[in-house]
Amino acid sequence: MREGYDVARLIIDALKSRGEALEESDVVVIKQKIISKAEGRVVRLEDVKPSRRALRIAKALKKEPELVELILKESRRVVRMGHGVMITETKHGFVCANSGVDRSNVEGGYAALLPIDPDASARRIRRSLEKEAGVRLSVVITDTFGRPWRNGQTDVAIGSSGIEPLQSYRGRVDAYGYTLRVTEPAVVDEIASAAELAMGKLSGVPVAVVKGLRYRRSGLGTKSLIMPKGKDLFR
Amino acid sequence: MREGYDVARLIIDALKSRGEALEESDVVVIKQKIISKAEGRVVRLEDVKPSRRALRIAKALKKEPELVELILKESRRVVRMGHGVMITETKHGFVCANSGVDRSNVEGGYAALLPIDPDASARRIRRSLEKEAGVRLSVVITDTFGRPWRNGQTDVAIGSSGIEPLQSYRGRVDAYGYTLRVTEPAVVDEIASAAELAMGKLSGVPVAVVKGLRYRRSGLGTKSLIMPKGKDLFR
Repeated sequence: MREGYDVARLIIDALKSRGEALEESDVVVIKQKIISKAEGRVVRLEDVKPSRRALRIAKALKKEPELVELILKESRRVVRMGHGVMITETKHGFVCANSGVDRSNVEGGYAALLPIDPDASARRIRRSLEKEAGVRLSVVITDTFGRPWRNGQTDVAIGSSGIEPLQSYRGRVDAYGYTLRVTEPAVVDEIASAAELAMGKLSGVPVAVVKGLRYRRSGLGTKSLIMPKGKDLFR
Repeated sequence: MREGYDVARLIIDALKSRGEALEESDVVVIKQKIISKAEGRVVRLEDVKPSRRALRIAKALKKEPELVELILKESRRVVRMGHGVMITETKHGFVCANSGVDRSNVEGGYAALLPIDPDASARRIRRSLEKEAGVRLSVVITDTFGRPWRNGQTDVAIGSSGIEPLQSYRGRVDAYGYTLRVTEPAVVDEIASAAELAMGKLSGVPVAVVKGLRYRRSGLGTKSLIMPKGKDLFR
């Protein structure tokens, strides 16, 4: 996968070569890294000039100064630092480790940055796939995020198109007559996690297709999952 | 589902009635609520006597005082309060809304508490299922948790048995020769999320079976996912 490659085209071709096709309402789940590569969001660390702040943080956390510089550039603010980790809020508003800047599964000496607008990337790919396949689809772009209080990571959505990110049950009544008030499963995140189980980290498989899922369509992207400041108890 | 019911027995019977059977390495995913009911962890709110502290918090958050009393009793500490929500650390060490105390999908006037030791519940059910089915299985008990910074909830594991909760890639090398340092997918949480997509919230379906997943077996339960204090940047 290199800059300028057509992700939708490659997915269609890969499916064709396996005698498979996309069907109505399929969810095409794509790992962020191949989108970043296709969009040229890969940086040679040698070309990065660390600021003083980056040098200071790099020393404290025992990280590469060039990587720290990229992490700071991709962030709005640093949320926490320690144990060799920077938790930042990215320019999109996601809170994650290292602003999503990552050296795995890219060429040596390079780092991948998150796509600039992952919802727009998802929309573009969805439209191309729908045109090629002649069915309505949705696309979810995923990355691997840690979380507070629990070890390990899960895959979550960073961009999506064609599927409502939250499938709200607010106001619906359960079998006992109780009205649900806060039940809003973030299905795009659950889809990201389900797809990760099928793809793994070292398989070289960057795309999975979720079939048979019933969901509401929507014009909203994953950006709508970012909690507004006023509601956020953890700012 | 009532106190004393045999969850494993009911799962085996339900599968039988559909002409299905458990196979080697299946992951049986069970929603917390039916475990809580089977274990008698359901409380009549009328029988709860709110403390002064509970009354004060209930007033501030516009919650039922009896419910607040239960939430406090099930917690080690309150992590955040506001917007009608209490984020607490449960006695198990999970950080979640309302200590997992929940009025949905239980009889009116009652609330369900989390199982006292969900890993032990999972272990007990796994052993019964394995004995009945004659194959090695794993069991994941799930609940629906919110998370900071992102709207909505995802299902996560609160107990498990037979499956290693974190499938670590530490020290493994990617296709570009880069050694992974922090990659540890919390597969039990990803399984919980995948299963939620199949079960939904109002279907009355409390069990899903994940088939065909390759995973490492382990004696560790979901308790091992709780981040140790010294490593936790968000305490």
